[in-house]
Amino acid sequence: MTLTSLNDVRQLLLNLPGPDEQAGDAARAREPQLTKPAGSLGRLEHVAEWLSRWQGAHPPKMEMPRARVFAGNHGVVAKGVSAFPAEVTQQMVYNFESGGAAINQLCRVFGTELKVKGLSLDRPTADFTEAAAMTEGECVDAIIIGMNSVPEFTDVLCLGEMGIGNTTSAAAICHALFGESAEIWTGAGTGVVGDALQKKISVVRDGVAYHKTNIKDGLDALMCLGGRELAAIAGAVITARQKRVPVLLDGYISTAAASTLEATLTGSLDHCLVSHRSMEPGHLRLISAINQRPLLEMDMRLGEASGAALAVAILQGAVACHNGMATFAEAGVSDKDE
Amino acid sequence: MTLTSLNDVRQLLLNLPGPDEQAGDAARAREPQLTKPAGSLGRLEHVAEWLSRWQGAHPPKMEMPRARVFAGNHGVVAKGVSAFPAEVTQQMVYNFESGGAAINQLCRVFGTELKVKGLSLDRPTADFTEAAAMTEGECVDAIIIGMNSVPEFTDVLCLGEMGIGNTTSAAAICHALFGESAEIWTGAGTGVVGDALQKKISVVRDGVAYHKTNIKDGLDALMCLGGRELAAIAGAVITARQKRVPVLLDGYISTAAASTLEATLTGSLDHCLVSHRSMEPGHLRLISAINQRPLLEMDMRLGEASGAALAVAILQGAVACHNGMATFAEAGVSDKDE
Repeated sequence: MTLTSLNDVRQLLLNLPGPDEQAGDAARAREPQLTKPAGSLGRLEHVAEWLSRWQGAHPPKMEMPRARVFAGNHGVVAKGVSAFPAEVTQQMVYNFESGGAAINQLCRVFGTELKVKGLSLDRPTADFTEAAAMTEGECVDAIIIGMNSVPEFTDVLCLGEMGIGNTTSAAAICHALFGESAEIWTGAGTGVVGDALQKKISVVRDGVAYHKTNIKDGLDALMCLGGRELAAIAGAVITARQKRVPVLLDGYISTAAASTLEATLTGSLDHCLVSHRSMEPGHLRLISAINQRPLLEMDMRLGEASGAALAVAILQGAVACHNGMATFAEAGVSDKDE
Repeated sequence: MTLTSLNDVRQLLLNLPGPDEQAGDAARAREPQLTKPAGSLGRLEHVAEWLSRWQGAHPPKMEMPRARVFAGNHGVVAKGVSAFPAEVTQQMVYNFESGGAAINQLCRVFGTELKVKGLSLDRPTADFTEAAAMTEGECVDAIIIGMNSVPEFTDVLCLGEMGIGNTTSAAAICHALFGESAEIWTGAGTGVVGDALQKKISVVRDGVAYHKTNIKDGLDALMCLGGRELAAIAGAVITARQKRVPVLLDGYISTAAASTLEATLTGSLDHCLVSHRSMEPGHLRLISAINQRPLLEMDMRLGEASGAALAVAILQGAVACHNGMATFAEAGVSDKDE
């Protein structure tokens, strides 16, 4: 199917595959046989079962974790919403490419393959307080780039972003989709405080007010208030589901991007886990709005998939235990009921 | 110095080395130069500084993590405080030795060297509701075994335990040292519920009442209410400090064992981090009593150093970022202030 409109994307969401219940049940059946009190590995047990269910196979695998970082520039930066200048987006893409960023180190240490994609960095989105951030065509193009970034043979996909100004986009998307006040969704980002933070809150409020009548679902919010890197994340989430690849979402911006799918059709993120709770204050509220619980709480607020790349280690630990442990019978250990 | 009494151990605590402030300051000075908003790696930044401070060197290293699991048997098991029979302690030691337990998988996946030591498993401690769990000589012997388990060239030491009945010991130690009611410190352990849990609470209450007048500090509590594996953990914590080895404590029992040192002399655990919050309900209260914050909250309650071994990955991530990231100058990225 060739995507040409957001309605085509809505059709894709209606046809997403569900979990592999048989694989999930196989994982659940193995757990009580392993040499430990039932349930004593806590969330590691849930992770192993979740991976089986969404990889569509048992035992679950963690041999090929991959990370994709999308970068975009934002017209709204002209409103003074970021502590860093817009050229930092491109500079950080160079830094990713030469291996100097946090995400490079975190991918290397846990064996995760990393690719970075800058999306039309010389062509920022429109300032969303004055126009839709993207035309429908621009939004669909960015979604397609994300969709084409998910290879076969991926055991888990970490999705992250880089884009000066994009916490402002994320806050506006959340305010549009989940209500409440603009203040609640707007945080310091890279380090905006005082009057600049008040300005950022106004921009979020004004942007949402401007587009309110045009936003009927999550994909509308993505087009009107988002950015190319957010659209690419949404696209990657869709293709991951189609290819049976579980997803680790990163922080506030990645989760906001993915939430545009959940707000369009409930259940679209069932194959995704929020890897960590960001210090960006809106993140915890957003996580709750999409009924998730973060794996890690490390007080991080960097983006670039760093939290997701760290959480890869938790998944590796979960799979190692689930697949490698001896059963009570194999080890000759007395079970509770004997 | 040859240890022959708990007073000798008290002397050791008085002479523990402090942190290397110069190494810690070097870590702190590097952080703001790295290509990320200041503070945006959150606890990873604190971990890198903490490792430098207690390894006594900058940059910090994570090339040689080691785990030590001590096992012991408990006379109080005769009172029916565990869901599993006492022979499971020895069976699980065999399981550790043949590589079938959770701790084996978690050590393997993150490259942690593992050694397991059973301490006189055929000679359980005394039932602490009727006598001191250990004689002073037995307690000192177990402490020495722990002290001798810490090799040179250890970048971090994970300490864990196995011992049917030892959540009862941990609860009694906490009740004796930190007050409140026996109920608050007593949880399900391997899976004790209903009347059996009420019995376990009574055992904790009676044991502490029996020894109350003899417990003047943490080491008294360790001897009267603890077990050989808990004493070995305390010994390993001491030697780690002397050899400049940072420590990852595991769950409720490991933390209770280590807290006997903190209760004897405040600051004795400054080189230790609590790796995770166990589901055992007393753990969170204990963590707070010793002014710590757990790194992970994975709802685990297995022991055997499993939480500590998982948290090794967090330390590896922290060190990889701290040591490997490019500075703003190296990467040609515009800093916030430029």
